[in-house]
Amino acid sequence: MLIHKIEEVRNKIREWKSQGLTIGLVPTMGALHDGHKSLIKKSVSKCDKTVVSIFVNPIQFCPGEDLDKYPRTLDADEKLCNDVGVDIIFAPSPKEMYGEGHIMSNDFLTYVTPPFFYVNKLCGKSRVGHFDGVCTVVNKLFNIVQPDFAFFGEKDRQQLIILKKMVNDLNIPVEIIPCPIVREESGLALSSRNKYLSEEDKKEALALSKILFNIKACYKNGIKDCKALTETAYSYLNSNHSLEYLEFRDANDLEEKNIADENTIVFIALKIKNVRLIDNISLGEL
Amino acid sequence: MLIHKIEEVRNKIREWKSQGLTIGLVPTMGALHDGHKSLIKKSVSKCDKTVVSIFVNPIQFCPGEDLDKYPRTLDADEKLCNDVGVDIIFAPSPKEMYGEGHIMSNDFLTYVTPPFFYVNKLCGKSRVGHFDGVCTVVNKLFNIVQPDFAFFGEKDRQQLIILKKMVNDLNIPVEIIPCPIVREESGLALSSRNKYLSEEDKKEALALSKILFNIKACYKNGIKDCKALTETAYSYLNSNHSLEYLEFRDANDLEEKNIADENTIVFIALKIKNVRLIDNISLGEL
Repeated sequence: MLIHKIEEVRNKIREWKSQGLTIGLVPTMGALHDGHKSLIKKSVSKCDKTVVSIFVNPIQFCPGEDLDKYPRTLDADEKLCNDVGVDIIFAPSPKEMYGEGHIMSNDFLTYVTPPFFYVNKLCGKSRVGHFDGVCTVVNKLFNIVQPDFAFFGEKDRQQLIILKKMVNDLNIPVEIIPCPIVREESGLALSSRNKYLSEEDKKEALALSKILFNIKACYKNGIKDCKALTETAYSYLNSNHSLEYLEFRDANDLEEKNIADENTIVFIALKIKNVRLIDNISLGEL
Repeated sequence: MLIHKIEEVRNKIREWKSQGLTIGLVPTMGALHDGHKSLIKKSVSKCDKTVVSIFVNPIQFCPGEDLDKYPRTLDADEKLCNDVGVDIIFAPSPKEMYGEGHIMSNDFLTYVTPPFFYVNKLCGKSRVGHFDGVCTVVNKLFNIVQPDFAFFGEKDRQQLIILKKMVNDLNIPVEIIPCPIVREESGLALSSRNKYLSEEDKKEALALSKILFNIKACYKNGIKDCKALTETAYSYLNSNHSLEYLEFRDANDLEEKNIADENTIVFIALKIKNVRLIDNISLGEL
């Protein structure tokens, strides 16, 4: 069932809650791919009712980013959701979420602000204000849908860690369920922004996963020094790549690591032409 | 029932929700007086179950403020609550609310940040960060108690307006119920900080309500110009008073008023010796 209005979602939720049903929420910006599909399936199998939100959230885009050209594919998204048994597709307009007028700034809008220590690094460094926008919209969606479980992909690992911190800090009665990255056979992590890539670009984009897989292999072979591990990466990069970061950080609090261990995540971001791609890998998991 | 632990409150709330009972929350910092009592009574009469939280919230105090000497009277508070039929008194420790260590800063803690336009004036001007602390703790309490209704006094009118804005902006499923200021026969608005005043100081403190009552009388007599209305105030002030602000603002969005109308609130803050007192009056109400 496709719903555009907050009040209509609330009415359905109230009905379900009164029946004692559990609710899963999968927040997305649409342009759904198999990565999203795996999150949605997990929710459908775990919860009595599943809500997928589709909202390209303006306040998490920075000036100059791709808000206007971000892929919007509602018809296809709706079909994917219906195929896997989603109960509500919640697709509000920006006006429905933020009201009218020029209120989408912290001059006139209440924000949920994640801790500076979690946002002053990795993607937060180049995307100033991005995670404030993410936390604010996810908080709003939590308040509207009141889910028992919310499903987020490990592809956006910094986001996942920040949202877990938000839930903990604000005592939000929602359990965050992390879901593994889904990759093409080539290794490329699925992303809605892959739509921006030509076939040629896509080959260049393999550098991300290759670097991460190689670092993990070296780590498993006994190299623990992060500087040494980083150096193994550069052979995968060429002049088509503009590396934004390659960093080793703690899986819980994003503290920087000098010596890699089972609790280390390797984060990478790089640009191919004007397309910015991210990926990450946990050294601890098999 | 006095409860110190979040998990214990959650268990009770879950039980009540499953029975379809409505829940009222009265957030306080303790040192309860007849003003709080009127809020609590309203909740008890309106809701099936009433939770009063008692928590001197460290993050809403600014450096140099009265966090350490703020009155703490838990035994008397408990008695007052039990007398009027409160179901849960929730009195957590700072550690229970914020965890251990030095995390009470926006470096390491997720905050709920009210809009700058609402906090850069009145009390927010001298109490930088105060309303961030208020919004954050109230958001936490809402997530813990999940009330249908929350009761706040009009004594802290800027806080009330900011919290209503927060509820609206973040789609929080709680209805805020404003409760009128309770005054001594003398006119003095009840406040936990009145405990800091000597009998002599208390007489000086009457300046606040006298100024407000006089402005309202002049307004009712036809004076609408805010500058003219302000001038009527100064005859009540003497060298024992240090006026922080006397301002006319819109009841919904705190916009400044030059011409008073039925939607205008008059706000005053002044210090007597080192005790800072606030009061306000709505020109619209009878």
